[in-house]
This record gives sequence, structure tokens and C-alpha cells, in this order.
Amino acid sequence: MTKQIATNITWQDGQVDREQREKNLGQKGCTVWLTGLSSSGKTTLAIALEQVLMQRGFLSYRLDGDNIRHGLNMNLGFSAEDREENIRRIGEVTKLFADAAIISITSFISPYQADRDHARKQHESAGIPFLEVYVDVPLEVAEERDPKGLYKKARAGEIKGFTGIDDPYEPPPAPELHLHTDTLTVVQCVQMLLDMLQEHGIISAEYVGSSIEHTNRVG
Amino acid sequence: MTKQIATNITWQDGQVDREQREKNLGQKGCTVWLTGLSSSGKTTLAIALEQVLMQRGFLSYRLDGDNIRHGLNMNLGFSAEDREENIRRIGEVTKLFADAAIISITSFISPYQADRDHARKQHESAGIPFLEVYVDVPLEVAEERDPKGLYKKARAGEIKGFTGIDDPYEPPPAPELHLHTDTLTVVQCVQMLLDMLQEHGIISAEYVGSSIEHTNRVG
Repeated sequence: MTKQIATNITWQDGQVDREQREKNLGQKGCTVWLTGLSSSGKTTLAIALEQVLMQRGFLSYRLDGDNIRHGLNMNLGFSAEDREENIRRIGEVTKLFADAAIISITSFISPYQADRDHARKQHESAGIPFLEVYVDVPLEVAEERDPKGLYKKARAGEIKGFTGIDDPYEPPPAPELHLHTDTLTVVQCVQMLLDMLQEHGIISAEYVGSSIEHTNRVG
Repeated sequence: MTKQIATNITWQDGQVDREQREKNLGQKGCTVWLTGLSSSGKTTLAIALEQVLMQRGFLSYRLDGDNIRHGLNMNLGFSAEDREENIRRIGEVTKLFADAAIISITSFISPYQADRDHARKQHESAGIPFLEVYVDVPLEVAEERDPKGLYKKARAGEIKGFTGIDDPYEPPPAPELHLHTDTLTVVQCVQMLLDMLQEHGIISAEYVGSSIEHTNRVG
């Protein structure tokens, strides 16, 4: 196969910017920042949202403990300083994903308002939407769920500094979305997340409300 | 507008994986790791490759000093330890982008083979293609180019530990691509980068060789 070369390739000075990437991809980049107690449902919702977005042809990416704590932040522990640096790095990385035109979804407890505010500032100073979602459940419900037995260990003193037990969780005073996961179903929560994305201009209305068959953008 | 809710949203247990994202996006994720002296042409090539990929409908994202040193790695200096941590974090982040099905392009001097080998291992252990590209130019040519006057300052002793002057650059012994930027044009280099991406199964042949008009996948 003979390839044509020189005439095929043109470019201008300057870099591809976020607007061009968004146009190319047909969506807007943003960060959906889920925050809440352990066992509140953050990861469940993140996984469900990711799947529904993919069914509708959108590209999203989840950052969570699995791909951050064992990779980028493997050299951080649980001291106050390290917790802050943990959330700072996550904020920077999720901002890069949003800048790449991706719907970036983070599911970390992120208990301190100052850290979440810092992440918001990181984004908003670059004009990138930051959507804080409070995944809210009463502590007693989270403790009942406790699929990994973490609350039990924390109550027994085997884990120190556990959010909700001997370390505070600071509820967001003004999140973009407040989900009560003890009374809402996952389906309802995902619908509310899609509505939020539409309201903030991330995805258009046609992909939010009607059936998957009708709106499926995957080939 | 009345929205249908429950029946619209379905998902299975488990997460969206890289393969599904790649299918959705119509490309494979990978990391194109450009390495070479200051002024060797890494950023020029990264910007040109990014533009040409976008013209052909592919999503790529560049990590470079601009979006890393002032963000994620703003708390790192230039000690040996910090340089290693700098490249380690870049390796982890570019791996996340590749895992998101994006053609991730990094343009850092990354002078030490051990650091590049570490980044390669980070990727290959997860089955993610790592394409090391040696952007090679004789030191005297780089020093002549010197658009920011950095070599001049390093020669004058105003910058310490400058790669090529008083800190070593270790050439990759077996890069996926070796570009001599003192004799090749940017167009030639970009064509060779596209060929490399095709050879490694990242993009298909139809998007590599023929004219932009014909292959343009952007709407």
C-alpha cells in the first residue's frame, strides 16, 4: 500500500483546546464529584452512571480507590497531610480528564469541605464545570450496610480515624445535587444525575429522558 | 417534557472496562511517550500529532509541563527524588488516560532509562500499549535552537542540573520509534507516528495514509 504523505498532514500553530475536543466528541467535559460516608453508595452510583452514559454514547471515566490508591497515590498514607494531598492530586487528575472533554466521575469519601472547595477552585478557575454530589445516608444506615465490615472494625478501635466514627464528615452546604440514598433507588439517583448533567449543559436533553433504544449513540 | 424513568436505565454488575470504552470510542487507548533533550522537538511533534489525530476523529490528550508542573506536580522540585516522583506520577496519569481509551501523549525530557522503564512496566502490567518515541537531535543542534535560552543559562551556570549540560540524557536502547528531528520534517515525523500507531493496532490503516478529506471522521 502506497501512502501519500506530505499533503495529508496540516496543522496550525497552537494546541487543540478543550472546545475543539468537546466538539469532536459531542459532549462537554466536567467533573462529577461524589462525596459521602463509606457505604453511602458512591461507587454503586458511579458505576451505574458510567454504564448508562456509555449506553448513550458518552465517554466517562471513573477515578476511585482502586485505580488511584494503588497507582498515583500509592505513596500516600492516612495522615492529615497525606489525606489532603490525596484529594489534591485527585482534584488535579479529574480536572485533566474534564479538560480532555470527558465526564470524569470521582467516588471518594472526601470528608472535608476545604478539600472539596479546593478541588472546585482548581476546576472553576479553568472554566471547567465541577458538580458536587452529596451521597447522603444516615450514619446508622451506612453502618448497617457495611459490606466490608469497616465500621465494625472502626467501632472496635481496629481502624483509627474512620470517617463518621472518630473522624468528622463535613456535609456539603451547597452541592449541585443532594441524593438521599436511603430512600431513593439507584435508578432514581441515576436519573437525577443525568438531569443534573443536562441542566449544566454537559449532555443534551435528547439523551436524558427517552428510551435507551431511541437515544443509544453507540454504533 | 415528561420523562420516562425506570425502564430507561439498566446496568449490570461490574464496571465498564477498557475494551467497552475502546469499542464505544472507536479507537484503542495507549501512551505515546516522547523523550528527548530540551529543544529536540517533543512539544512541536505532540501538538502536530494531536491536531492530525483530531482532524481524523480520534481523541488524544497531551500531558506536558504546562498542565502537569503547575498542577499535579506543583509540589515537586528538581531534586533527584522529585524528578523521579515527577515521572512516576506522569506515568500513572498517562496510564489512566490510556485506560480511558484515549491516545495519551506525553512530552517530557524524561532523561533516565530507569524512569521510562518504570512507566513502561506500569502500563504493560495492565496490558496497555506503551510506545516510547526517542525524539533525537544532536546536542549542538538543540543548543543552537534553544528558543527559551535555557542552554545558554545552563552553560553560564545559571541553571544547575540541566539535561545534556551537567546532567545526563540516557538514550532509549529500544524505543518503538526513533525520530531524527535534525533531518526529518515535522510532516515526516507525524506520518511516522501515525504509522507506528497503526502498526501497534491503535488506529486502523484507513485513517493513516489517505487524504484528510477522505478520512476525516469529524462531523
